[in-house]
Order: sequence, then C-alpha cells, then structure tokens
Amino acid sequence: MSAAAADAISLARLVPQARERDEIADLLERYVHTLDNGRIDEWSAFFADDATYQVTTRENVEAGMPLGIVLCEGRGMMDDRIKALKIANIFESHSYRHVVGRPLVEVLGNGSYAVRSSFVVYRTMYTGQTDVFATGCYDDVLKPGPQGLQFAQRRVILDSRIVDTLMVYPL
Amino acid sequence: MSAAAADAISLARLVPQARERDEIADLLERYVHTLDNGRIDEWSAFFADDATYQVTTRENVEAGMPLGIVLCEGRGMMDDRIKALKIANIFESHSYRHVVGRPLVEVLGNGSYAVRSSFVVYRTMYTGQTDVFATGCYDDVLKPGPQGLQFAQRRVILDSRIVDTLMVYPL
Amino acid sequence: MSAAAADAISLARLVPQARERDEIADLLERYVHTLDNGRIDEWSAFFADDATYQVTTRENVEAGMPLGIVLCEGRGMMDDRIKALKIANIFESHSYRHVVGRPLVEVLGNGSYAVRSSFVVYRTMYTGQTDVFATGCYDDVLKPGPQGLQFAQRRVILDSRIVDTLMVYPL
Repeated sequence: MSAAAADAISLARLVPQARERDEIADLLERYVHTLDNGRIDEWSAFFADDATYQVTTRENVEAGMPLGIVLCEGRGMMDDRIKALKIANIFESHSYRHVVGRPLVEVLGNGSYAVRSSFVVYRTMYTGQTDVFATGCYDDVLKPGPQGLQFAQRRVILDSRIVDTLMVYPL
Repeated sequence: MSAAAADAISLARLVPQARERDEIADLLERYVHTLDNGRIDEWSAFFADDATYQVTTRENVEAGMPLGIVLCEGRGMMDDRIKALKIANIFESHSYRHVVGRPLVEVLGNGSYAVRSSFVVYRTMYTGQTDVFATGCYDDVLKPGPQGLQFAQRRVILDSRIVDTLMVYPL
Repeated sequence: MSAAAADAISLARLVPQARERDEIADLLERYVHTLDNGRIDEWSAFFADDATYQVTTRENVEAGMPLGIVLCEGRGMMDDRIKALKIANIFESHSYRHVVGRPLVEVLGNGSYAVRSSFVVYRTMYTGQTDVFATGCYDDVLKPGPQGLQFAQRRVILDSRIVDTLMVYPL
C-alpha cells in the first residue's frame, strides 16, 4: 500500500462510525443515569481496573497544574471512596441530575477513543430546592473491556474554581 | 433454530438500529420544541388515543406510590386539560425551554420501545427572569401510530418533591 | 419520472441520513466547545464568507420585528466584532458553558440544511459563581464549504427579552 493510501485510511478512521458513536454516547448516558438514580455501588464498574478518575478545574488545567481536587488511580481507590462516603452517610439529603451534551469523538485505534462532552449537574435538596451544582467538560479515554467500552480515564474539568468542599458524590 | 440462536437474535434486537434511534430522538425533540414554541394545541397529537400521561416525583416513585400530581388517561383527558388551561388564561406570562439528554432505548418488540431520558426545563417570566423550573427523567413507552411513533406512556418523574401548584403547562 | 415518483423522492430526502445528522450535530457541538474554550479567534471560521449572524429575542420574532440585538453580515463584520471585543478586554472575568439539545434537521437540497436546536448557556464568574446566562433556540442554515459544512445563517433566538447589555461574547 502506498503511504498516501495508508494516510487516507488513517484519516478515514478518525471519523467514528455510527455504531461506535452510539455505543460511546450510550455509555456516557448510562453512567449519569446510574449516578442520578443513586446506584453509586455500580459507579466503579464503568471503569477499567487501572483507570484514573480525576476532578479538577478549568483554572488548574489552564495553569498547567496536574493536581486536581480528586484523584483515584484504579478501581480499588474508587470503591474505597464510595465505602467511606457510605459510612459518612452524607448522601441522603439530596439528589442529582446530569444533562450531557453530544460527545465529540476521536478514534485512537485499538478500539480506543478520546471523547469530550459538556455537562451540567443540578442538585435538588431535601427541601425541594434545585440549583446548578456544577458545569464543565468531561475529558475521557475509553477502551474495550470484557463487556464493551470502559473508561480508561475520566477527567472532570469544572468551570468554577469554587468547589463545594462536600463535593463527594462522583461526577 | 436452536434456543441459543433465538436468544442471540433476541438479544441483538435489544440494541436499536440507527434509524430507530433517530426516529425516537427526533420525536422527543419535536415534542419539546412544540411546547417551547407555545403550540399546546398540538400537544396531545404526540400521544396514542389510549395513552397515559403522568407527572410524579422521584420521592413518590421510590416510595412505591402509584399516584402522582397529574394523570391523564387517554387523549380526551389531555385535550380537556388544555381547554381548561386556555380558559384560565394563565399561559401568557412566561415561556419554557426544555433541554433533553440522549434517550436510552430498549427494544420491546412489535415496533415498541421503552425510552428514558433526563431533562431540565427553564422558565422565563415576562420580567425576563430565567430560572430552572424542573429537572427530572422521562420514562416513556413508544408504539407505532398511523404516522410514525407515538407515546403510549409518558411518565414525567420530577427530581423535586416541591412542585409549583400552578404547574399546569405540559412537561 | 412521474410527478408522484418525484414527490416521493423529494419527501424521502427530507429525512437526513445518519451521516448527515452526525456531521451537522458535530459541527454545532464543535462550535460551542470552541467558544467555551475561549478560542474566539476561530469563531468566524464556522461561517461562510457571506453568512449572517444574528442575536434576537423570541418577543421580537413573534412580533415580526426583523431587527435584533446583534447583526453581523459577512465574516468581515464578525472578525471586526471580535477585534473590538479584544481591545475592550472584557473577556477575562468569566467563562461560558453551552449545552445544546439534539438538532432537528430539514434537508433543503444542494447540500444545505435548515437546523433548529435548543440551548442553555451558563456563565461562571471569576468569583466562582455559576448562573444561567441565556436560554433559547438556534435557527440555522448550513451549506457546504471548502472543508465541510458552514453556517450560512445562525439566528440566536433568546427566550428572555432582558439581555445583558454587555452580552458581547458570541453565542
């Protein structure tokens, strides 16, 4: 094959197929429905065993600061986090609702994808008051797992530099 | 055909085709554009004659309480509701904007689908003030009608247990 | 070909193909990510040379008033607008986040499309406060350009008649 033909194929592969887009977008949506329905025990199952989950701010990212607010390296850390949260029992008083924009997908090869999507999260307190809790962008890497795509990386980039210090629920 | 092969086909059918997804997502989006454009006379046309339209809260659903805030059984009840609202003339002072997340679709067979989607509704008052009016989840069943898919069931599950008692506009 | 057959073909073409939908929805999403990432120098590149960009209100549109709040005729006017804004240096203190609903697409022929989509924009101030900045509907016409689809028209129809007079950032 000529280099030009290989380039053409490579470029064509940067455009995901409809089936790939659907699988990716469904995964992102199932993730937020799982959280919004309060099924946090299922949260880490969206991640590969060695995946990273990070929450940071736009300001940190623009300043090139690698550290964020939350960093979990591997599903074990994620499960520990959820266990601690359940012991602290601070989930009861409010619920969340995520609305996620259309994901922009880049094909990385080997069945992996870089995916970016905008989101807003609303929080409804026990009193019934609903407020914007957070807005931002998901910066994800997905890769194939035993039962479909999994997060290899989910980096949650918040628009606000002021973060609720009780922000313990996964985003 | 072996049972295993039949299962494989059945499972494969749980994944909607791109054409099906598009028809479903377009229907959900046309529904909210119709409401947001104030064309409430067209609202009931999205439903089958014997469809149910219900508004309830997450709290009610989790408590297993079947009753909600609004229940219309059949298009006749929906049309009556709109007539009453027009006589009361309480539409004039504000407008709505729905933003709906990607629908999660399950194929039920016979051309029907179970569909769940997250939503947020903003209300803009005559003064120009815009606020979050409601967040929640649509729990829908769609089935084929004479001119494409229709709602056989739309259950609006609100995140907040505090509902504006004037909440008369369809969601 | 009979007139009936031609009509059938014409009607069929009113339904966009999956590939067309994806290209259109990706364009709308790349547009808002570009703005939300602060890359305003790339804004006008989404438009055809002779495109129009307009910001108006639902109230103006319903009253049949053609004038809006902002009108740029051609990319030159758009670039001038951005230059002026950069000189005024009023961008620094806040950031934006757009969440856009699924676009409703009508095939116009000659590779062009009429597209409508609902949106909400959040603004995060330097203090960290996040508020709903605007809600509304994009009323767009897309046409083929040298490197894919471009906006021939973007009409931003705001739900609120009260508009921040400093609303200088592209929507």
